[in-house]
Amino acid sequence: MKPMAPSSIDLTTGRIDLTHGAGGRSMAELITDLFQRALANEWLAQGNDQALVAVPPGRLAISTDSHVVSPLFFPGGDIGRLAVNGTINDLAMSGARPLYLAAAFILEEGLPLADLARIVEGMASAARAARVAIVTGDTKVVERGKGDGVFITTTGIGVVPEGIAISGDCAQPGDQILINGPVGDHGVAILAQREHLGFESEVCSDSAALHDLVAAMIAAVPQIHCLRDPTRGGLATTLNELARQSGVGMRVFEEAIPLRPAVAAACELLGLDPYYLANEGKLVAICPPDAAETLLAVMRAHPLGTESAIIGEVIADPQCFVSLRTRLGGERLLDWLAGEPLPRIC
Amino acid sequence: MKPMAPSSIDLTTGRIDLTHGAGGRSMAELITDLFQRALANEWLAQGNDQALVAVPPGRLAISTDSHVVSPLFFPGGDIGRLAVNGTINDLAMSGARPLYLAAAFILEEGLPLADLARIVEGMASAARAARVAIVTGDTKVVERGKGDGVFITTTGIGVVPEGIAISGDCAQPGDQILINGPVGDHGVAILAQREHLGFESEVCSDSAALHDLVAAMIAAVPQIHCLRDPTRGGLATTLNELARQSGVGMRVFEEAIPLRPAVAAACELLGLDPYYLANEGKLVAICPPDAAETLLAVMRAHPLGTESAIIGEVIADPQCFVSLRTRLGGERLLDWLAGEPLPRIC
Repeated sequence: MKPMAPSSIDLTTGRIDLTHGAGGRSMAELITDLFQRALANEWLAQGNDQALVAVPPGRLAISTDSHVVSPLFFPGGDIGRLAVNGTINDLAMSGARPLYLAAAFILEEGLPLADLARIVEGMASAARAARVAIVTGDTKVVERGKGDGVFITTTGIGVVPEGIAISGDCAQPGDQILINGPVGDHGVAILAQREHLGFESEVCSDSAALHDLVAAMIAAVPQIHCLRDPTRGGLATTLNELARQSGVGMRVFEEAIPLRPAVAAACELLGLDPYYLANEGKLVAICPPDAAETLLAVMRAHPLGTESAIIGEVIADPQCFVSLRTRLGGERLLDWLAGEPLPRIC
Repeated sequence: MKPMAPSSIDLTTGRIDLTHGAGGRSMAELITDLFQRALANEWLAQGNDQALVAVPPGRLAISTDSHVVSPLFFPGGDIGRLAVNGTINDLAMSGARPLYLAAAFILEEGLPLADLARIVEGMASAARAARVAIVTGDTKVVERGKGDGVFITTTGIGVVPEGIAISGDCAQPGDQILINGPVGDHGVAILAQREHLGFESEVCSDSAALHDLVAAMIAAVPQIHCLRDPTRGGLATTLNELARQSGVGMRVFEEAIPLRPAVAAACELLGLDPYYLANEGKLVAICPPDAAETLLAVMRAHPLGTESAIIGEVIADPQCFVSLRTRLGGERLLDWLAGEPLPRIC
């Protein structure tokens, strides 16, 4: 391809303006000098409005997520890393091996180009670490006050291995419920950053790509019934989703659910329930009881699962209730999240 | 799956609030009662955070586009139809047969649910007409003043038939340049609606899914070199993109480029150049000279190509200039779009 004339993109002091979304020269420069440079791969180099990719035979998983997290940068991550890891995780929860991502940006007029560059570098770094390529994209610009810095929608495809049938409707009474570590870190990290609460340094977002962990889990226990990442709505809402989908009840044990003291303290202070706070590097796994200890051992052996635990069990319940057995021996209902404790968490 | 308690979603007078994006009960109701009802298919019914789909063997095309058009409803379409057709077209421009779409919504607090329902119905209708399924999705909500009604990101995958190698870098000197009808309709329709110019009734958006037309073209002329839809930046910018990608020049003839009198008049009135206005149902095709008449005949025989024309030719030019031979016999440069004549056109 013939190179364009010298670019007018200033990644140090420049800002997004409406020409960057107009389809003309400024947009082409932004794509060439920022996106293609940071994300460089053979598919982006095709330079077309679509990427052609090869996929191995098998069932494909497709998942999409818009990311609108505020603030854009937070302890443990940024909107770019979140957008890459979040969609990888949604693919991985079907047992799929993630292959390719598409990324679409809605930029607000006035966004510093240095911020955008930092975000795109974060995406590039997360994609490299996950061995997934961002193969195509799109850039739109909206006027000041019609967006909020940057929104990123990532869509991924992956291939599901033969013999794997993981779905939210597969939980059965007697199954065991596992999680790969403490809950609520992401929610508290965002809230602390947003409200300047002063305990930022203690709690970082758990944002991470979970597909390697899932691959190890499936290799050891191919009969896993359900996997889901407890993001918005937290552990409690994810358990309710799975219970409803499978037509079962669930019982989890407070003392078994991993929780960092700093997260517990922040929740106490703010009147929040950690079981409803978002996570970005956690998964809930449900498996037959005779496989639970094997699965736990595999999860604990992985760097993203050292604090894994069996937290409860699936029970027969036509009402599909999820209940929490407390440390004191009582039992309370863990209902669906109602209301909005924490908007724009992801 | 166990049905939820009676829904609180009021599609007549209700509005989006932050709970619709929180991951809890309100979001589940919105997904069940609006999205899954309108878009119903076996993949959405899986109820997971990803869809599992079967694809035939071959190369896959992937494309993504965020849609931020303002206003949301306009003569000839709405943001929902545009989001479906736009991504189908980006796939089709590689010769791919579109198969599946993912749709991610960023909703602004306060959006009337009736508007959202109308938009989702438009998407459902466009997807049905194109025989493409919307298999997975996502919903986020941002506070009032941090978005603008609704933004929709659609991502599609399709399969490219064996033996097809269509790409923006394949144009060769001597090739002929074709278009499937008049330019600028979409741009003028949006502008008229936005500015209340009073000629709304005359010009409608050309928003349409072009994959059937493309399939017919490929069947007749498999050796097509380039296909691209001249959306943002219009015909002029698309020709410049293709010229740069292929390292060639292009010459087009003013009298050969189809243009509606109403669009010409609106451009005259507003001081706009129709060759830079966005189209949403047009494609530029470049093919070897000996195939051009065959291709033209096939295009004219299709309902979306009755006004097709051969508009110019590819020439050798290391500077990759695109020039316009005017009706009076002069020649002017058709440069890249610079500046922003019409923001948020798609």
